[in-house]
Amino acid sequence: MKFKRYNKKSSYSYTFGYSTTQSLLKNKKNINIIKVLIKKEGLKDKEVLNLKQNLEKNKIPYEINNRLIDKISYKENTYVIGIFEKFKEDIDKNKDIIVLVNPSNPRNVGTIIRTMLAFEFKNLLLVKPAVDVFHPSLIRASMGAFFNINFEYIDSVKDLKNIIKNYKNYSLMLDGDKSVNDIKIDRNKKNCFIFGNESRGLDKDFKNFTNTIYIPHSNNIDSLNVSISVGITLFKTKYG
Amino acid sequence: MKFKRYNKKSSYSYTFGYSTTQSLLKNKKNINIIKVLIKKEGLKDKEVLNLKQNLEKNKIPYEINNRLIDKISYKENTYVIGIFEKFKEDIDKNKDIIVLVNPSNPRNVGTIIRTMLAFEFKNLLLVKPAVDVFHPSLIRASMGAFFNINFEYIDSVKDLKNIIKNYKNYSLMLDGDKSVNDIKIDRNKKNCFIFGNESRGLDKDFKNFTNTIYIPHSNNIDSLNVSISVGITLFKTKYG
Repeated sequence: MKFKRYNKKSSYSYTFGYSTTQSLLKNKKNINIIKVLIKKEGLKDKEVLNLKQNLEKNKIPYEINNRLIDKISYKENTYVIGIFEKFKEDIDKNKDIIVLVNPSNPRNVGTIIRTMLAFEFKNLLLVKPAVDVFHPSLIRASMGAFFNINFEYIDSVKDLKNIIKNYKNYSLMLDGDKSVNDIKIDRNKKNCFIFGNESRGLDKDFKNFTNTIYIPHSNNIDSLNVSISVGITLFKTKYG
Repeated sequence: MKFKRYNKKSSYSYTFGYSTTQSLLKNKKNINIIKVLIKKEGLKDKEVLNLKQNLEKNKIPYEINNRLIDKISYKENTYVIGIFEKFKEDIDKNKDIIVLVNPSNPRNVGTIIRTMLAFEFKNLLLVKPAVDVFHPSLIRASMGAFFNINFEYIDSVKDLKNIIKNYKNYSLMLDGDKSVNDIKIDRNKKNCFIFGNESRGLDKDFKNFTNTIYIPHSNNIDSLNVSISVGITLFKTKYG
């Protein structure tokens, strides 16, 4: 098998760096780990050396291959890369869900996934067109949290309308009806929190079929970064 | 004057994109705007056309120059670039301040600046070694908020210790003493909020000279992204 720079159409993807690769190795999803690549210089590092010993113990293929790492990684100083087979999965429809409508930035979505896991949300629904969740920059920004949540894509807002009938829903809009400080989450219900695209937000139409909320802030800025909005909303509903 | 790809040592920096360049043009800091570059294709866009007319009206030099834009921008489809002279400034020591100790990621710091402005914090102190605030990726991630806050660099944590004597201080640590939910901000005092490096956080020593706080979250992740931590903390202290 020949490995190239990541491409949406590849059947495999990569974890760049030691800690993200550790999250892959510890995953509980039965992910097929094809191989781990290690840079020669990395073996001077105790952590990397331990990793190599663990791979041997668990019979996971590895290869010392500087040339291949340089070819597929984006940054210098990547000592470890995991290669794994992409997988398809479904979200747990009996739990709270986070919905991202047309997210376009892999790093933002990676940070959002890391934040979801922090506040115990494990189910992510993405409305297409949407970022490729297997993009290595997303997986890296998630710090490996990607391997601990469930995701599912749906084709359209029309499909979303059907799905959210089963949830108590909240959608974040600049001109939402209620402040995030004033909502009371019913933990006995299934809740669903909806966030829009990084630059366009959610379409006006969401006012007609969701409960809209907003985060109070000064008018010195147009809007918060979507990952910050998700962070504040999820924190408020869980621990705030 | 010959313009090249951005470099820390340049005497000038860039705003990439229409809206960030607009923030530069509207700045109230007397920044010396050297020139605005516009791509030929951009002139099909009404907004860009208006911008060009405004530049003519206000006698700000501009140039239609696709080749130069391609040379200095990181992304395709950048239609507008502002070129401005770097400046030095001081923070307003009579107001609340945000301190970032050794931040290393320009995009994180840009998002933090955008968030600061959202929650009405306008003074940013950076402890070296620290990211270059004039990096175009930082300015872009701030969505131009960079031009509406004040920043200042200091050399060391030792210098920081002296400065924060004049503030009621809070520093965010994973094992902080108080939850961010339990602190009461005294709006009549000058407050100072301190955040650490993206991967290392703050040194243990901060326990000895600051009031440490933490953000409650599950132990499914090691830590939150620093920009999310700043977002939640500033929101809580101002509007939460």
